[in-house]
Amino acid sequence: MTSPQTAAQTTADTPATDGLEPRDGASAPFVARHIGARDEDVRHMLETLGYDSLDALVDAAVPAGIRQPRPLDLPAPLTEAAVLERLREIAGRNVMKTQMIGQGFSDTVTPGVILRKVLENPAWYTAYTPYQPEISQGRLESLLNYQTMVQDLTALPIANASLLDEASAAAEAVLLMHRANRKKGDGVTLLDADLFPQTLSVVRMRAEAVGIDVRVADLSAGIPEDVRAEVEEKGLCGVVLQQPGDSGRLHDHAAVIAQAKEAGALVTVAADILSLALITPPGEQGADIAVGSTQRFGVPLFFGGPHAAYMAVKDGLQRSMPGRLVGVSHDDAGKPAYRLALQTREQHIRREKATSNICTAQALLAIVASMYAVYHGPQGIAAIARHAHRQAVRLAEALRSGGVEVAHEAFFDTLTVHVPGRAEEILRAAEENGVNLRLVDADTLRIAADETTVDADLAAVLTAFGLDAGTLPAGAHDGAVATPAIPRELRRTSAFLTHPVFNSHHSETQMLRYLRRLSGYDLALDRTMIPLGSCTMKLNATAEMEAISWPEFCSIHPYAPDHQTEGWRFLIEDLEDKLAEITGYAGVSVSPNAGSQGEFAGLWAIRQFHLANGEGERDVCLIPASAHGTNAASAVLAGLKVVVVATAQDGTIDAADLDAKIAANEGRIAAIMITYPSTHGVYDADVKDVCATVHAAGGQVYIDGANLNALVGLAQPGEFGGDVSHLNLHKTFCIPHGGGGPGVGPVAVGEHLKPYLPSRDVLMTAAPHGSAGVLPISWAYIHLMGAEGLKDATEHALLGANYISRRLADLYPTLYTGNDGLVAHECILDLRELTAKTGVTAEDVCKRLIDYGFHAPTLAFPVAGTLMVEPTESEDLGEIERFIEAMTAIHAEMLETTPETVEDSVLRRAPHTATTLITSSWDRAYSPEKAAFPVPSLRMDKYFPPVGRIDGAYGDRNLICSCPPPEAFEEAAADSAAATGTPDAPVSTATASLGH
Amino acid sequence: MTSPQTAAQTTADTPATDGLEPRDGASAPFVARHIGARDEDVRHMLETLGYDSLDALVDAAVPAGIRQPRPLDLPAPLTEAAVLERLREIAGRNVMKTQMIGQGFSDTVTPGVILRKVLENPAWYTAYTPYQPEISQGRLESLLNYQTMVQDLTALPIANASLLDEASAAAEAVLLMHRANRKKGDGVTLLDADLFPQTLSVVRMRAEAVGIDVRVADLSAGIPEDVRAEVEEKGLCGVVLQQPGDSGRLHDHAAVIAQAKEAGALVTVAADILSLALITPPGEQGADIAVGSTQRFGVPLFFGGPHAAYMAVKDGLQRSMPGRLVGVSHDDAGKPAYRLALQTREQHIRREKATSNICTAQALLAIVASMYAVYHGPQGIAAIARHAHRQAVRLAEALRSGGVEVAHEAFFDTLTVHVPGRAEEILRAAEENGVNLRLVDADTLRIAADETTVDADLAAVLTAFGLDAGTLPAGAHDGAVATPAIPRELRRTSAFLTHPVFNSHHSETQMLRYLRRLSGYDLALDRTMIPLGSCTMKLNATAEMEAISWPEFCSIHPYAPDHQTEGWRFLIEDLEDKLAEITGYAGVSVSPNAGSQGEFAGLWAIRQFHLANGEGERDVCLIPASAHGTNAASAVLAGLKVVVVATAQDGTIDAADLDAKIAANEGRIAAIMITYPSTHGVYDADVKDVCATVHAAGGQVYIDGANLNALVGLAQPGEFGGDVSHLNLHKTFCIPHGGGGPGVGPVAVGEHLKPYLPSRDVLMTAAPHGSAGVLPISWAYIHLMGAEGLKDATEHALLGANYISRRLADLYPTLYTGNDGLVAHECILDLRELTAKTGVTAEDVCKRLIDYGFHAPTLAFPVAGTLMVEPTESEDLGEIERFIEAMTAIHAEMLETTPETVEDSVLRRAPHTATTLITSSWDRAYSPEKAAFPVPSLRMDKYFPPVGRIDGAYGDRNLICSCPPPEAFEEAAADSAAATGTPDAPVSTATASLGH
Repeated sequence: MTSPQTAAQTTADTPATDGLEPRDGASAPFVARHIGARDEDVRHMLETLGYDSLDALVDAAVPAGIRQPRPLDLPAPLTEAAVLERLREIAGRNVMKTQMIGQGFSDTVTPGVILRKVLENPAWYTAYTPYQPEISQGRLESLLNYQTMVQDLTALPIANASLLDEASAAAEAVLLMHRANRKKGDGVTLLDADLFPQTLSVVRMRAEAVGIDVRVADLSAGIPEDVRAEVEEKGLCGVVLQQPGDSGRLHDHAAVIAQAKEAGALVTVAADILSLALITPPGEQGADIAVGSTQRFGVPLFFGGPHAAYMAVKDGLQRSMPGRLVGVSHDDAGKPAYRLALQTREQHIRREKATSNICTAQALLAIVASMYAVYHGPQGIAAIARHAHRQAVRLAEALRSGGVEVAHEAFFDTLTVHVPGRAEEILRAAEENGVNLRLVDADTLRIAADETTVDADLAAVLTAFGLDAGTLPAGAHDGAVATPAIPRELRRTSAFLTHPVFNSHHSETQMLRYLRRLSGYDLALDRTMIPLGSCTMKLNATAEMEAISWPEFCSIHPYAPDHQTEGWRFLIEDLEDKLAEITGYAGVSVSPNAGSQGEFAGLWAIRQFHLANGEGERDVCLIPASAHGTNAASAVLAGLKVVVVATAQDGTIDAADLDAKIAANEGRIAAIMITYPSTHGVYDADVKDVCATVHAAGGQVYIDGANLNALVGLAQPGEFGGDVSHLNLHKTFCIPHGGGGPGVGPVAVGEHLKPYLPSRDVLMTAAPHGSAGVLPISWAYIHLMGAEGLKDATEHALLGANYISRRLADLYPTLYTGNDGLVAHECILDLRELTAKTGVTAEDVCKRLIDYGFHAPTLAFPVAGTLMVEPTESEDLGEIERFIEAMTAIHAEMLETTPETVEDSVLRRAPHTATTLITSSWDRAYSPEKAAFPVPSLRMDKYFPPVGRIDGAYGDRNLICSCPPPEAFEEAAADSAAATGTPDAPVSTATASLGH
Repeated sequence: MTSPQTAAQTTADTPATDGLEPRDGASAPFVARHIGARDEDVRHMLETLGYDSLDALVDAAVPAGIRQPRPLDLPAPLTEAAVLERLREIAGRNVMKTQMIGQGFSDTVTPGVILRKVLENPAWYTAYTPYQPEISQGRLESLLNYQTMVQDLTALPIANASLLDEASAAAEAVLLMHRANRKKGDGVTLLDADLFPQTLSVVRMRAEAVGIDVRVADLSAGIPEDVRAEVEEKGLCGVVLQQPGDSGRLHDHAAVIAQAKEAGALVTVAADILSLALITPPGEQGADIAVGSTQRFGVPLFFGGPHAAYMAVKDGLQRSMPGRLVGVSHDDAGKPAYRLALQTREQHIRREKATSNICTAQALLAIVASMYAVYHGPQGIAAIARHAHRQAVRLAEALRSGGVEVAHEAFFDTLTVHVPGRAEEILRAAEENGVNLRLVDADTLRIAADETTVDADLAAVLTAFGLDAGTLPAGAHDGAVATPAIPRELRRTSAFLTHPVFNSHHSETQMLRYLRRLSGYDLALDRTMIPLGSCTMKLNATAEMEAISWPEFCSIHPYAPDHQTEGWRFLIEDLEDKLAEITGYAGVSVSPNAGSQGEFAGLWAIRQFHLANGEGERDVCLIPASAHGTNAASAVLAGLKVVVVATAQDGTIDAADLDAKIAANEGRIAAIMITYPSTHGVYDADVKDVCATVHAAGGQVYIDGANLNALVGLAQPGEFGGDVSHLNLHKTFCIPHGGGGPGVGPVAVGEHLKPYLPSRDVLMTAAPHGSAGVLPISWAYIHLMGAEGLKDATEHALLGANYISRRLADLYPTLYTGNDGLVAHECILDLRELTAKTGVTAEDVCKRLIDYGFHAPTLAFPVAGTLMVEPTESEDLGEIERFIEAMTAIHAEMLETTPETVEDSVLRRAPHTATTLITSSWDRAYSPEKAAFPVPSLRMDKYFPPVGRIDGAYGDRNLICSCPPPEAFEEAAADSAAATGTPDAPVSTATASLGH
């Protein structure tokens, strides 16, 4: 046992044991690594708050009525080395094979430099969603690259910055067609029968939940006779096609698309991203929308996820499109700058009007996929596509010459093979030879080639068919058609990935420096506290992260046979059990791959429950005014009507209004969705009454687990009144935010709802276990902490929040408090009075915090004009004091300001770039030192944002969502140089380092 | 096969094969990732130089007479995925066991955050030796922490920043005692018999080579009678002791140290670094010098290395101490700043007067060890020490209660056990149980506990002894003595690791941020070209680096039995074979763990050869005036006399002077040491003549392989005249420089010298294979590149150097050129005329390059007043152009300067910190924009050094070599704030973020 990575040793050489002794003093327990405050810090903080002990503080803050009576029943905590040892043992129960199953999941090589410098690099994975664009230019540029890559490959002009998975992206496309096609919105939506089965399953569930009429039909020869009549009667809203089909067949969609358009429908094509390097893209065939997975661009199989799905649309649909969209604008010095565009589309703003509940994206995986394209470039991507194609072609030739029937003449990388009565036998033989194929039925197999397919793999397949591996034809010859199984009319002729960024970083040194430069632009947890209320940005420990890139976990196909995935299934079940214990529920499914998906799954379960009870009329979902917008959006998507319940003066639910709304909807109450502690950061004492009231009205209680970090070990939502909760493993359970995803949103339910949990039969995501790949993180966290450690974490989270609230109380009053004037794990600082007096807004404070080296707290949620601060248990007292110091100094700066002077103030003009500050022609009302170094410690360790305050409105008015030309940056730099008078600056010849 | 890490898959499931097909277009060949220039860039560069093809350029530059007639005979290149697959297969041939062998190598847990953020992070591992301190403050601070840690634990006031391994550190201590003890320098040096066998072996070889009289004696009861007479006669120069002894026994050295001092001797104690947390340290027992390994502070076993050894000395010895020493000085703004102190001690300055040839340190490993201490803190380190001790105590108790004889009452973590006649049988039984013990002889075993020893390991040992594992006593009870086997008088009472840096970063979040902050201070290859002539700073590819932290490689003990290390031994032999093929020699040993050690090994072999031939009188080593200082130092250490040969006007060896020197030393010529291409960066056409001349005089030809990057695939030193070479795997073969080590310096020899290569019987390092742990890097590089790729790399290295030379010729003439005005792989830019005219020195240019975001070229070697530039093949044209742009702009800045104005020039005052530049009271002769953004691209991507120009002389006059108190930085920041007039700056309370 040397490094943590050597943990396999003991399990390899000695019997596996549960009796892994804690290291008994050899190493600090993990809880001391996870929690920031040392004992003496805790004493100091408690003293400030006036409590003798953490227990006393917690007893005062948390209502006795909801406290759990006994400690959590969890295994004793393991050391970091021991947890890795256990994970090695679990991983060892998975069986690694060459994965030729396909079905939307293809093996790929993650270039080492991207693996280590992105996927395994905290500078990228600990970053938050880029809502503060000035400190997010690195990941925003990466996501803009992603959008540009998708636009180029699909030949559609607008792409978003990723969706959760291909199946839910297709479902989102159906919803988008439904709301965008106003004339035909009530019409039928046709799904081609050659979609992936998981896509069909998810689309149907999601469409049916909101009453969209979807039909599955074989569209390969156009809209068939038997549905044409109905389509003509009801109208055709949309069509969903797939290229290549689930069968592997390449379709020429031109005719069916024309037919659909003639009928007034919109058309979505789900397309394999790699195939688009060789095949006529959807945009050129007339599609309005394209969706798909970018997994095979360097993202490991991960047993099904997380992977970034894409969506691209034609011009005109961008304002209806779900998901995040990165756009180009400029900063206050006129320099091009990136930020999220059209944010008003997002559910947290549209609330109950929202028609998509997408909140998280798959930013980290989208970044990996985009960097794969940056690194390989257009030639490299095309070469990889040709390789996969050529291997499939060679296999098809060898099979045919051996007398095996290969179904289609036109294919990309996947073959459907007819072997009457022999499919299972050949499948088993291939598995023996180390290769997984896909069983379609007793007579049919599918075989998918990919980037990694080597001749030995093809030989293994041929042998399984009883053929001589020597029959494999040689590779393509000079002069041979490069893509023989792609019909001429489907061969791509247009260029793609033409932007310099895809043509500049092809050596590893270049790529390494590009990644380092971009990561330097951003502020993530590896540099500063990210005190984002409701987001719980805590430590993502290395020991938690390590296992996710072990091949025994990350190379497993989601549809590999069960006997190869025992390790995965054990880990998932064990995690579900532990989460059930922690939350007090009877059953948990970790399948939802974002909080929004967990909400949908929970509400869908409630809906099914009422339906099963013959109470289909229960369709009203009560939602407090203070709720997160996603709640309302999820309710809508689950087919429920949103009725808002008022919030009382003290931030609790208005009991009278609750009664009134229940009375007004008698017999129709399906559920109430509440967050606990409330989004106001307070433990409402009367939560049990609210639950009882709703139960009495026949409704179910949905407790949003966003704030579970204030409950773990202290109270269990499943015990104090909840029927359903979703959790956010990317908040409470240490999955990193990844710069805006991956997230995992398990749904937890009481016994009566267990039949309605997502499962392999009730798919809500493209893979049965959602984003399985990152579950070892939460599993490790729980096993490292143990019951006592988890409770400690919660208590320290309370302590930190209350300490900040108290220390800043005289400057920024905390808006809502509960018992004893205490908050839960976060506090809302009310700036409204200060803003009125000084003209300085809460947003100005956020931007000014960048100059102090901080990521801003949550702005204007749940109350406009406020900042919600959540330090989490992982921040140490030094960092908390640094934050208090910054907020104190900013307060003093605010007091120097008036509504008249605010425009020229250091606050309104924040953040300040080095380029702005270093000038001979400084003409502002404050000094550059004041701007840059308002507290002395900044002279030792200073972060300069790469851009100044960004003009978001300009970007929305002038929407640009693909990479700008490098000249835009050169001009800005030259302008800037000219403006500040650099004498005789030589013209830069190093264009590769500009902009991109 | 998903990520590169999944490479094991195929080998696990299919037969191991050598027929790993290249991926046939699926992925770019590695050579295109390694080499920076694209085809169109090559065309452009060749056009500039006036050649039609690379071949034509190479034919013009490299003398035909030395060109190799046939391509290298190497395996076809593998893809990155395939090379990892091969390495997995090789790694799988090693057998992992719990390592309880001890003998100076103990298992340890590398904290995940340190593993990933230091050892696997290019920001740390690609950095160069911190000769440019302004861009090296991060690693200098880390190394200062290391020195402070060693000083505290040894209780000696000065420690250096690491040596190569414990055995050679002990040898260096003997040499140090010899030169420092002027009165007794000719006396005897006594080595205690209880030193590690490898220490005894290396010390004796090194001492005997320079004629130091060493004797081994049992010093456990003082100087024994039988040597006392001789000691009295000849005088006693030094004594070397070990604590705990090789036997595991704890010695009370007080008496023997007093005895030695009385005799006028100096005393060295080799001490286990972990034990010093519990045991009276050498400094408190009166030792003058302490040495040892810091491996067990978090550095993997690595099959023997690389590990950082330490040396600490009493006051007065620092100026004689070998190795690098970090000291504190201040920058031009008065801010504390670190840099290498007392550099005049170093061999590259002392040249033939040098008495140590230490050039490389083990910086990366020293940083890991220091960060381990930072992360665990004094309590944590003591707890780990107590754990190892307690496990040894419990094992001893159980053995004794089972009737087994445990030799010593006083021990730390290692037991010597007497089992007459049963040792081998028990060893085998323990191995069966998964544990390696150490076989001393047929009757004796040794068993070492460590940080990782769990009860299951002890149980496995007891079972091997035929004892009941249940006899293991419980852990220590309350009130029990914590360290029962440490005699009261040897228990440490003094505090250690008291500096705040060891008491501030104990949560993982804190540690992560500390590491991120430090790495942000430094410029490494992940941000910029490092165009250091003679240092070959090329890409260290991820695929090359990955395997070194695989447990199957890094958890193997160097003295594990051969049948457990087949993978390692195959890899090492294969690498030696490949290096022999590349260099044209008959045999290679990779054992020397630095270039300096390779030189010693080569010269030692020459010396043995002459002795074996009865030509012991051949003791003169000819060394050209332009040679690297290490050459001369190594010759001295090998017992040779250095005679300098003059360099001709054109940089070649002066043939007449060579003849004269040979004539003057007729019959005494042992060897000539030349570098090829010469240190002037030129292929001398007459190298074969020089070789012939020396051979004719009976001498051997030693060709220093420092510049092998200009030869690989083109010419073989073993073929064109060399008898011996050493290589630098950390130059030509991609082992990263690690911020100043590890290095590997294989020695390559002709057939007649093979008997004198280092081997397991002729140890020159503490472990038989030196720094084996990093050899997979070079192995991977060679297998990724193949013969053609390696030759391509060489040719592109030539191309880049010649392109820079040509492009800058009008501004900075290249001092030496060969055929056709061409250079080899580097060029010396002559600044002397410019300096005379403008007053701007070459050093000023180096410092000004920092403002342009560059690491400086090699300064003043081999010619004062010049810069030697080596771009390597890995730099792309964009980066080369960026360098040319910077040098062009600097040239313009020089021309604006005169000797009268230089003091206030932007060049002399470079580099510029952000703190200096951002001010309201700018009073310099140039604008701040000119200082910060002399070329526009810097506005997009700017590096600010954390400190300004450092006053090295001040630091040498006021030597401080341990961490300064944080107040020093606070004061500097406050001064700085006051000086630039920050209004009402609040006092920082965030002390943890200051300085340390």
